[in-house]
Amino acid sequence: MNMKEIIAKKKRGEVLSKEELSFAFNGYLKEEVPSYQMSALLMAICFTGMTLEETYHLTDIFIKSGNTLDLSTILYPKVDKHSTGGIGDKTTLIIGPIVSSLGVVVPKMSGRGLGITGGTIDKLESIPGFRTALSKEEFLTLLQKNLFAVTSQTEDLVPMDQKIYKLRDVTGTTESLPLIVSSILSKKIAGGANQILIDIKVGEGALVKTMEDALKLSDLMKRVASFYNREVQTLITPMDTPLGRAIGNRIEVLEAMEVLKGNVHSTLAELCIQIASHMVSMGKKIPYDEAKEQVAASLQNGKAYQQFVTFIQSQGGLLTDLSLSENVQVIKSPTTGKVTKVHAYKIGELALSLGAGRMSLEEEIDPGAGIYLNKIVGEEVKEGDTLFTLYGKIPSSLSIEEYYEIN
Amino acid sequence: MNMKEIIAKKKRGEVLSKEELSFAFNGYLKEEVPSYQMSALLMAICFTGMTLEETYHLTDIFIKSGNTLDLSTILYPKVDKHSTGGIGDKTTLIIGPIVSSLGVVVPKMSGRGLGITGGTIDKLESIPGFRTALSKEEFLTLLQKNLFAVTSQTEDLVPMDQKIYKLRDVTGTTESLPLIVSSILSKKIAGGANQILIDIKVGEGALVKTMEDALKLSDLMKRVASFYNREVQTLITPMDTPLGRAIGNRIEVLEAMEVLKGNVHSTLAELCIQIASHMVSMGKKIPYDEAKEQVAASLQNGKAYQQFVTFIQSQGGLLTDLSLSENVQVIKSPTTGKVTKVHAYKIGELALSLGAGRMSLEEEIDPGAGIYLNKIVGEEVKEGDTLFTLYGKIPSSLSIEEYYEIN
Repeated sequence: MNMKEIIAKKKRGEVLSKEELSFAFNGYLKEEVPSYQMSALLMAICFTGMTLEETYHLTDIFIKSGNTLDLSTILYPKVDKHSTGGIGDKTTLIIGPIVSSLGVVVPKMSGRGLGITGGTIDKLESIPGFRTALSKEEFLTLLQKNLFAVTSQTEDLVPMDQKIYKLRDVTGTTESLPLIVSSILSKKIAGGANQILIDIKVGEGALVKTMEDALKLSDLMKRVASFYNREVQTLITPMDTPLGRAIGNRIEVLEAMEVLKGNVHSTLAELCIQIASHMVSMGKKIPYDEAKEQVAASLQNGKAYQQFVTFIQSQGGLLTDLSLSENVQVIKSPTTGKVTKVHAYKIGELALSLGAGRMSLEEEIDPGAGIYLNKIVGEEVKEGDTLFTLYGKIPSSLSIEEYYEIN
Repeated sequence: MNMKEIIAKKKRGEVLSKEELSFAFNGYLKEEVPSYQMSALLMAICFTGMTLEETYHLTDIFIKSGNTLDLSTILYPKVDKHSTGGIGDKTTLIIGPIVSSLGVVVPKMSGRGLGITGGTIDKLESIPGFRTALSKEEFLTLLQKNLFAVTSQTEDLVPMDQKIYKLRDVTGTTESLPLIVSSILSKKIAGGANQILIDIKVGEGALVKTMEDALKLSDLMKRVASFYNREVQTLITPMDTPLGRAIGNRIEVLEAMEVLKGNVHSTLAELCIQIASHMVSMGKKIPYDEAKEQVAASLQNGKAYQQFVTFIQSQGGLLTDLSLSENVQVIKSPTTGKVTKVHAYKIGELALSLGAGRMSLEEEIDPGAGIYLNKIVGEEVKEGDTLFTLYGKIPSSLSIEEYYEIN
């Protein structure tokens, strides 16, 4: 067996055996296969795809590259949640407290943001004192006590995904359904939850561009998960606009708190209620409508918000000082009309330049930097109205039409 | 401009500008672009191809990566020749003397063999004393004097191709028409000849698998060469069987000498006469049939052989000791019938294992190792007849049906 032949085989569209996949991927992890051969193989996979069996084998190789978390000592139902990414996606901060307030454990391991994509860990760390580097024992204890905890993904869980994802990110090989499946599922399965809800984002700026691909991805996820006796449910939601009005870190925590306090008249709140209801329905094995009623009640009677406060305090966070950057700039609308589009990708880039994100994992981020969208898609705007507000390293100039379409 | 976007663009099948191609390829040459990004780009090119204009730009970037050879002081017509490779291909050793004996200069820069592919330089170096590392001045002087000389490809000519070819070789990205065109043409154009004959090998074991691809390659070569006012003619010849009966180094020199002495009743001799006639026709601007008569005469009257002897002696070679390895093993036919196939690729691998080739450029080769095919395709064989003969590191066991099909 040699890497050159494995690449050539996949390039011709042939099926690789588990042994060949292991030779390539474990070889790369052990640094016996050079990165230039792995990137060529990844690109060939992007073009010729993988069968269900290959995808399962690859997921298994990913899982076995590190340790797994055993949650069997926690006797509540355990439902994990994953979103395939989006600008301004603070759903974990909202859903975790709601679902856990209803007796379903949400064991959440999250990552840091890179490039224009934000990370839940960065958002939480913008709260003074909040600790994300939990030991395995501490994480389990908090889950047992509060039913919700968030830890930064530990090094020893699916190290293969960390290494492969970095390479995919710089070699234009992120958009491949079998590679997306093995990356996401391996982490969720190694993370120990027996039920998983996956929110597949579809749109221009998303990993998945078309509804057709989203349906394929959904089907593939469910089939691969069934090999492990894990239940996967999927939601397919559009991602052509930022999620909610806040993009950044502390500013997103503030927006999440608003929803948790019961301000539910927004697309963001509606999406969170939908996801949370699915998770509660899965975990408690009750109909969706019944779950939705419980979710609505938890938001209205203050339980969800109280659960959020407990969660933050249990991990050392202080909610008393959540101030934003003092460098503020208000951007006014040059025209009157209706907002027809807010370019998510460009808004993400702008937030990055303000200091809310990082280009490499070594960079520091500014917790108070970010963007507030005073007007979002569907809203009327008059010339001179505030369109959006910047916090952080304000750019010297900015052309509004790159971000907003008003007609 | 960044490499990640360039890869993504090509992955989507879009056209890259000359600036983008230069950013990627010159960046890689200067080690500013890492090999894992270059191999991902090469794989994407394999799948989505390149336009004529992109191929021309890439060829130009290749040429400008190093020096070029100016042959304008040599006033004879100058016709270079290239073959896209084959097991047992010793045509250069035969054609060079024939064509130059008829007043057409053949300026030949050749490479060493790697893997199962032999190299003209290795074949010539199996002649005791033969020098291939000629300086530019020495090469020009010999061409002026003898009209034929062979030098190992100098480091400063198209360094880009040397670097890219090595990467393509190990990443399964050799089979791409635009990449083949830029690799071959850049070297031929930098080498200074104004007329070029290219022998495109088609078949299972060849770079080009189908006649359709061979015709595309031919067309692309001619079009790109026309941007440089170079005339390209192509021959498309089958490569599903070794060329001639000898595979190795010294053993191929001996077979070439037989043809040059006028033993022209073989497929090998016929192919060489065909190529040589095309080259003479191009260089002297005479009809093909007239050129073919001159070629036949040169072989019959001893001029071609005399030219070979002069060429070898001018570069220091001694033709007195061309002995083969003393470890000889004769392989007998287990059955009676007609040879219907000799697997070129497997024969190439066998020659490599005997010591006739190398797996890395640092390895030494055994000049006396090789294979002689006592029976070739189309010949009748009786049980117990000698099928082929091995010279060199004889393997302990060998299964004949991997190499020969007899029906």
